[in-house]
Amino acid sequence: MNDLHAPLHAEELDAEGIGGWPFGIRDRVRFSELDALNHVNNAVYFSWLEMARIAYLLDYGLTGMSHAAPDPQIVVRRQSADYLAPIHFGESYTVTMRATRLKPSSLVTDYGIYVGRELRAMAETVIVSLTQDGTARQAWRDDAVARMVERDGATLAGFD
Amino acid sequence: MNDLHAPLHAEELDAEGIGGWPFGIRDRVRFSELDALNHVNNAVYFSWLEMARIAYLLDYGLTGMSHAAPDPQIVVRRQSADYLAPIHFGESYTVTMRATRLKPSSLVTDYGIYVGRELRAMAETVIVSLTQDGTARQAWRDDAVARMVERDGATLAGFD
Amino acid sequence: MNDLHAPLHAEELDAEGIGGWPFGIRDRVRFSELDALNHVNNAVYFSWLEMARIAYLLDYGLTGMSHAAPDPQIVVRRQSADYLAPIHFGESYTVTMRATRLKPSSLVTDYGIYVGRELRAMAETVIVSLTQDGTARQAWRDDAVARMVERDGATLAGFD
Amino acid sequence: MNDLHAPLHAEELDAEGIGGWPFGIRDRVRFSELDALNHVNNAVYFSWLEMARIAYLLDYGLTGMSHAAPDPQIVVRRQSADYLAPIHFGESYTVTMRATRLKPSSLVTDYGIYVGRELRAMAETVIVSLTQDGTARQAWRDDAVARMVERDGATLAGFD
Repeated sequence: MNDLHAPLHAEELDAEGIGGWPFGIRDRVRFSELDALNHVNNAVYFSWLEMARIAYLLDYGLTGMSHAAPDPQIVVRRQSADYLAPIHFGESYTVTMRATRLKPSSLVTDYGIYVGRELRAMAETVIVSLTQDGTARQAWRDDAVARMVERDGATLAGFD
Repeated sequence: MNDLHAPLHAEELDAEGIGGWPFGIRDRVRFSELDALNHVNNAVYFSWLEMARIAYLLDYGLTGMSHAAPDPQIVVRRQSADYLAPIHFGESYTVTMRATRLKPSSLVTDYGIYVGRELRAMAETVIVSLTQDGTARQAWRDDAVARMVERDGATLAGFD
Repeated sequence: MNDLHAPLHAEELDAEGIGGWPFGIRDRVRFSELDALNHVNNAVYFSWLEMARIAYLLDYGLTGMSHAAPDPQIVVRRQSADYLAPIHFGESYTVTMRATRLKPSSLVTDYGIYVGRELRAMAETVIVSLTQDGTARQAWRDDAVARMVERDGATLAGFD
Repeated sequence: MNDLHAPLHAEELDAEGIGGWPFGIRDRVRFSELDALNHVNNAVYFSWLEMARIAYLLDYGLTGMSHAAPDPQIVVRRQSADYLAPIHFGESYTVTMRATRLKPSSLVTDYGIYVGRELRAMAETVIVSLTQDGTARQAWRDDAVARMVERDGATLAGFD
């Protein structure tokens, strides 16, 4: 059986008409994600961003998601979402993601949430890389930085 | 028994050292709101904003939260949060809220999330008032607009 | 693109070493489903049962999941779960399901939750079929009853 | 300010017409706990049981809820719920709880979920006390056992 949850890359996203993104995941709306207005609740979108982000962090080698060094502890410092049109039960969605601005131990990422080719929401997060004990910043790995620059076209700031 | 969930107003918030806010709610962190990092998950904060917002909408008379006219259907168009410090199990928090900018059928609100007197997160939402069938904008009630101006000092735009 | 969320039937489940079940769904653990003990929270399993059940109800033709007649409103009357071993982040699971006892407007179903071939939890629910306004029982469709008997070997009680 | 979330004991519960229970907590339904059927989702009840259970474990001295010895790690081995009538937005509920059967490192508890004096759901859980590393059983503290016998009338089995 193939991996149902394998992330999507630029070529696959392009082929489905969602052009211009280097990374994405796909899933289907769950009944438990609806609220009493019968559409996906606004807070649920941030769990979807988290799913995409964790898949991205693993795929780009930013962390192995362990709770031990040398993996960093990654925390969200800021996030926002724009809701363009509601999402309903039974719909499948794609969360796309890219790194836009990159500092030695923090990162700004953009997201799109699509149903088919239709953009239903946009979002942005700022994440920070800490040591596992949470007391200090921990720099991103060089190879992961290189991937974010190459695949995503992320701009760098604050690097020597 | 007094109402354990009665919202707080300016005087009560001032008395607890959270000055400058016209409205707030208080609750305690639930175990189910923690994630594997052992602090409140970032997406959960948006459910807290929703609790504060619904209490506010009812308190200011913006809606009765029914699913029938003349109550509007209120949807979130945009929201953001800044996370200043993590929140842990067993802590009680206050979500404060005020209307800042007001248009005939939309509204920008600010939030603070405090543990004791310490600001742990800030947030902002843009909400829109629709008719129950979701097809058109529905203007805010005049008395609710007056309350947001008087209590919150909200600025108006787009009113005749 | 094939349907990533298509339900599994007896032949596919058998092929993966999960024999004896007529129906299943597969998904992967989400970070947001973990609790502070770093395994899937016990309450989350019931959302997984719900996902499996809704897929089953649609697949067997018990409801179209609309909020209008002739679809019934289906409510859970009783449920239980036995937790055999914890489930962790990154694991993929299969929720299997079958109807065991069937009455004209209610239904007992069994579930297994597997990671690979290993049974991690078992569960049972009793659901009831109501009219959309919730005031009366609504009988299951004959063709759906026939499917539950044929595919699942459900036993009947209370039918004429 | 008094503690809004202080647990209730037999006398307070009796005074509100919920007789026969030694322990309870009270809270109000959140909008996010509703599902598309506009009542509290069946899985949410298990989070409410968890809130009651954690308050109970702390109140009776079974654990300090730390992640370090001598506190045990407490896991749910089995649970069930019976849903008698739906619960709606705006309603406040009381979750009552008592220990019924007690073994050296496990415990069966009963729950009632009331809105006013009306029983809306009943539940039962079996929990197990493990060492923090999860590899062995850890016996309950003697003083906590004594409280469960005295306050709840729990029956003992398997003690020397």
